[in-house]
Amino acid sequence: MVFQTSRAFARALDRDDALSGFRERFFVDDPELLYVDGNSLGRLPLDTARRIEQVVREEWGERLVRGWNGGWYDAPARIGDKIGQLIGAADGQVVVSDSTSVDLFKLAASALRLRSERTKIVTDSLNFPSDLYVLQGLNRLLDDRWEIVSVGSDGDEIIPDLDSLQAAIDETTALVTLSHVVFKSGFLYDMAEITRRAHEAGALVVWDLSHSVGSVEIDLDGCDVDFAVGCTYKYLNGGPGSPAFLYVNRRLSGGATSPIWGWFGQNRPFDFSLNYSPAPGVARFLAGTPSVLSLVAVESSVGILLEAGMGAIRRKSTALTSYFVQLSDAILSRAGFVLGSPRESEQRGGHVSLRHPEGYRINRALIEEMKVIPDFREPDNVRFGFSPLYTSFEDVWRTVDRIARVVDERRYSNYPKERPPVT
Amino acid sequence: MVFQTSRAFARALDRDDALSGFRERFFVDDPELLYVDGNSLGRLPLDTARRIEQVVREEWGERLVRGWNGGWYDAPARIGDKIGQLIGAADGQVVVSDSTSVDLFKLAASALRLRSERTKIVTDSLNFPSDLYVLQGLNRLLDDRWEIVSVGSDGDEIIPDLDSLQAAIDETTALVTLSHVVFKSGFLYDMAEITRRAHEAGALVVWDLSHSVGSVEIDLDGCDVDFAVGCTYKYLNGGPGSPAFLYVNRRLSGGATSPIWGWFGQNRPFDFSLNYSPAPGVARFLAGTPSVLSLVAVESSVGILLEAGMGAIRRKSTALTSYFVQLSDAILSRAGFVLGSPRESEQRGGHVSLRHPEGYRINRALIEEMKVIPDFREPDNVRFGFSPLYTSFEDVWRTVDRIARVVDERRYSNYPKERPPVT
Repeated sequence: MVFQTSRAFARALDRDDALSGFRERFFVDDPELLYVDGNSLGRLPLDTARRIEQVVREEWGERLVRGWNGGWYDAPARIGDKIGQLIGAADGQVVVSDSTSVDLFKLAASALRLRSERTKIVTDSLNFPSDLYVLQGLNRLLDDRWEIVSVGSDGDEIIPDLDSLQAAIDETTALVTLSHVVFKSGFLYDMAEITRRAHEAGALVVWDLSHSVGSVEIDLDGCDVDFAVGCTYKYLNGGPGSPAFLYVNRRLSGGATSPIWGWFGQNRPFDFSLNYSPAPGVARFLAGTPSVLSLVAVESSVGILLEAGMGAIRRKSTALTSYFVQLSDAILSRAGFVLGSPRESEQRGGHVSLRHPEGYRINRALIEEMKVIPDFREPDNVRFGFSPLYTSFEDVWRTVDRIARVVDERRYSNYPKERPPVT
Repeated sequence: MVFQTSRAFARALDRDDALSGFRERFFVDDPELLYVDGNSLGRLPLDTARRIEQVVREEWGERLVRGWNGGWYDAPARIGDKIGQLIGAADGQVVVSDSTSVDLFKLAASALRLRSERTKIVTDSLNFPSDLYVLQGLNRLLDDRWEIVSVGSDGDEIIPDLDSLQAAIDETTALVTLSHVVFKSGFLYDMAEITRRAHEAGALVVWDLSHSVGSVEIDLDGCDVDFAVGCTYKYLNGGPGSPAFLYVNRRLSGGATSPIWGWFGQNRPFDFSLNYSPAPGVARFLAGTPSVLSLVAVESSVGILLEAGMGAIRRKSTALTSYFVQLSDAILSRAGFVLGSPRESEQRGGHVSLRHPEGYRINRALIEEMKVIPDFREPDNVRFGFSPLYTSFEDVWRTVDRIARVVDERRYSNYPKERPPVT
């Protein structure tokens, strides 16, 4: 189809959408609300709401502590394997556990121990800031013996400096760690190429999949990735603060050890031995008792993505973001919006950033007056995430239409320029 | 009242029980089931079931990402303050976060950094094994530079060797860390005395309150404790795997730092600065995004304990366990049961251990035939936890009655002596 700006064109795209039926699997109380922040917190799947009610009443309420033998105990590995199917990981390499930060801490510490004769950690300034904090904190704990090289500046690049990144990886590098999709711009790294370059230099990689899992096709085994982490509350729709997952390549799982030795990572926990002995495989990266309510929510939510299939999800995601970019070029660029994401869809994840000098106030007006929920990232990025399972092409059209009205009607001027301090 | 073994005596105790009305605040589908494992996983409070449904449907489902500004963001500190009221901690010193193991890791690392010129960690063999694992793993990460002294043997002591413990604490000791109530025997340490002794030697303490919080009166501020952790799924009834809490004494909160530098522990997270700067106070010990569903469950559940009051809870807990010990002496000792807990109630937490050569099979028969749910801990301990808010004195009487029947009728002989491997 040749691109057109009409609403009828959006509707035609929806008629051809193989995934359109998945929208009714989600809780939607207000059809007028355009929720384009599923890249931050995914919508509630109806299956998940039912499953949480079941685990509360029937499992916790009725079965009580016996629930542990009725599916809770093996949930971290069972759900990990399901997530594995979304990210190209064969069974036995993924577990669901803790938060992304805690998991990154475990994996980075493990990688540094496996390359303890080296001196350098390579990352970049487009990484999610808290990933950098985790590296900084780990390094402090280890008496700052590592040099953390963060390629790029504290500016507003959209595209990483890939040449400098490649050049920074050398025979002194223990670990290369990056965010697979950049949180501000949606830039998508070439996982295979960077992993290959790291391995060529003898370094290990940790990929943070938080902003890519569930919207981008990922092949961890195929890329021979060493370690990966990711969150489950964005495109996986696991609920607010649902636990993270971590991947340890099977070829490493005998030698890699977590720095946090917990009961669930112990080989035979119910022996209550006074000395730790790691469980075989990736399970040793579990720590304390997992949060069961949040875990089962993840399982139900991931089930929906498995039904849809990552190939179809990525195809629709690309179509949605490409359509938004086209509409933005046609309609919003005259209002001062500049694309803050890569133009080529193969370099882009599931969200698109539009930059505007009034971005902060435009975001506020969209939320408070227009029933559009994007989010804002300093200094001037308004991010629009189009979660493929519940976003239609007409939703994209309506989003652009409402953005245009906010600017044309100068609605953003109803809000102060000053940002309130975030508590 | 003079102790009697009759059921009528149990009923008389129930009539005098100021907390008897709290039982109806809990989900109880089968009144015949005697659930005496609330020291492992507490029952489901009805308020909590309702609150979870609300957070799923109304907050996640309807408010979506806006939920963060509607009470989620400040939940770790807000709920921490409520738990603080149960453990003698003034506001601003407790947060709810991660698991007990991860929190212990953070606090132990922090304590070691504050005493980095020293060489020794003192604990004992009655500590919960996974607490020992956390110390061992942390020490490995720090190149085994610390000596971990675990007082006692890998035997079956009920009472710790307090003289040896005191003697082990010296001017080379950085950290003393113990489980406030021993998981096998229910022994309750003198927190004030051991903390005083540690401070006298210049050491810091981390108390693990997992087995005491919600059943024992605790005064962290009054004892001038440095650090504490605890779980919320036992006597606090927060649900399976609900998040842990940690306490950092205000006098330390400027100098103590977490080894896991996460977004929620950052001073101004939404600045997205590339460099970590710790939040003021205990909040710096938060790491990644908290698990909201599990957090709100903790808040509702803790609210019930605050209504009841820890003084009344401890009084009833002591009465329940004392009554069980008396009945056991009168009725069960002839069947070969030996008390595995301290006889003096002031040295005892909320659960009682009975030791028996056939303990493993007796526990199985109680669960599978008698509708009694205790739990078993190697080699011969059957543990009976009497959670004061939903356990009656008649429940205690019925528990003893059914234990006696299992032995008198040799029902345990229906089960193999061999323990199946725990998966």
